[in-house]
Amino acid sequence: MKKNTKVNSAILIIGNEILSGRTQDTNTSTLATWLNSIGVKVNEVRIIPDIESIIVETLNVLRKENDYVFTTGGIGPTHDDITAQSVSKAFGVKFEIHREAFKILESYYKPGEFNEGRQKMVWMPENAELILNPTSGAPGFSIQNVYCLPGVPSILKSMLGGLKNRIVGGEPILSHTISLRTVESEIANSLTKIQNKNKEVEIGSYPFFHAGKLGVSIVLRSESQSKIDNCNSQILEFINEKKIEVVDR
Amino acid sequence: MKKNTKVNSAILIIGNEILSGRTQDTNTSTLATWLNSIGVKVNEVRIIPDIESIIVETLNVLRKENDYVFTTGGIGPTHDDITAQSVSKAFGVKFEIHREAFKILESYYKPGEFNEGRQKMVWMPENAELILNPTSGAPGFSIQNVYCLPGVPSILKSMLGGLKNRIVGGEPILSHTISLRTVESEIANSLTKIQNKNKEVEIGSYPFFHAGKLGVSIVLRSESQSKIDNCNSQILEFINEKKIEVVDR
Repeated sequence: MKKNTKVNSAILIIGNEILSGRTQDTNTSTLATWLNSIGVKVNEVRIIPDIESIIVETLNVLRKENDYVFTTGGIGPTHDDITAQSVSKAFGVKFEIHREAFKILESYYKPGEFNEGRQKMVWMPENAELILNPTSGAPGFSIQNVYCLPGVPSILKSMLGGLKNRIVGGEPILSHTISLRTVESEIANSLTKIQNKNKEVEIGSYPFFHAGKLGVSIVLRSESQSKIDNCNSQILEFINEKKIEVVDR
Repeated sequence: MKKNTKVNSAILIIGNEILSGRTQDTNTSTLATWLNSIGVKVNEVRIIPDIESIIVETLNVLRKENDYVFTTGGIGPTHDDITAQSVSKAFGVKFEIHREAFKILESYYKPGEFNEGRQKMVWMPENAELILNPTSGAPGFSIQNVYCLPGVPSILKSMLGGLKNRIVGGEPILSHTISLRTVESEIANSLTKIQNKNKEVEIGSYPFFHAGKLGVSIVLRSESQSKIDNCNSQILEFINEKKIEVVDR
């Protein structure tokens, strides 16, 4: 993959606990923020249940449509952790003991504690590359363009550092935010005109309610700082004309 | 749709701000919790950008595969709010002024304040039914099995009450949680055996870190309370044998 081209990704959140509403997913936001910072755009996120056929089918769609796919969840020791076996099926490769992972966990646990449940975590797709886990030992893995991470947010976060050199991003996506004491409908027409004149800047408009007051954040996103600056000037011009207050959030 | 059958849904989160990591989605958890409580299972969640062709294509997949689809985001007054026009295209119906919505907003705003930006919010698919908004006036809408809600979490929440009688769920999905002072690998084998004996109870295992201590929550989910109770007894049996402490979380 060449630098300076657009690099796309999808995030696949695997877990019944998110679909039941029991657990609030935060991994999407963690991964998306990190990926954008290294020049990888997130095209799509899907949240699916712990069902093998659905994981296989969804992964086979996403890995063909994206430069990278990041999965979270389902790589622990219990019966509902079926990501590694599902990924093996998706790629049509053997599901087997990963020797390096075995060694890592064998030395991570005290003698006698590397039990059957824990040994389940060293089963991976053939030729998987490990993603090291500085928090709790059990590694994630990658195969081709698919990177499998755990669901526990703090463990996932601790593993991103080790992944950085393996993900080749494009130009980082830059952003600039202007927060205003106004409501969206007051600025909608002016923003539409500016968006039409600045096709290469993605202009988002997000109402907020903060410290008892309503406001709107305008977010400008582009790979080009000069295009953001140019667009920003045009926005400042109309908010000056309309005498709208700029605020910090 | 008959009561007592399984009722499925998908959630479609529309918004670049979630995919960039800027905004933490909480609507999935709100909607999923509410839907489960009225007997509607969430099969899948997708998060997609503010791009018309993607919204149309995704919606046309999801609405055919599910009894209900709930969208969030993109129904405000600005240029990046394109959900209503996209839904019209997905259904192949006219995109037009909704008279009742027009009346609601005309009387909601002070004379002279129902400006062009605000008038954008009354454009909906032909024959859309309104979803009233007790917080900020502008209604959402439904067409066939698709329900379009706003992205702002507090406004979305306030609109669910008015939706309740329009969503026909199946048997509510019941759940029971047992929290243990243990780690997953200690209970993995026992849980696997119990899951194999209790096919109609979905058993989930979720590690947690709370008040400085590690633990595992086991979540039992089923439409049948007696099946949950039965499964629960089997779990209590092995945790007694293993002398694992049950904790409150």
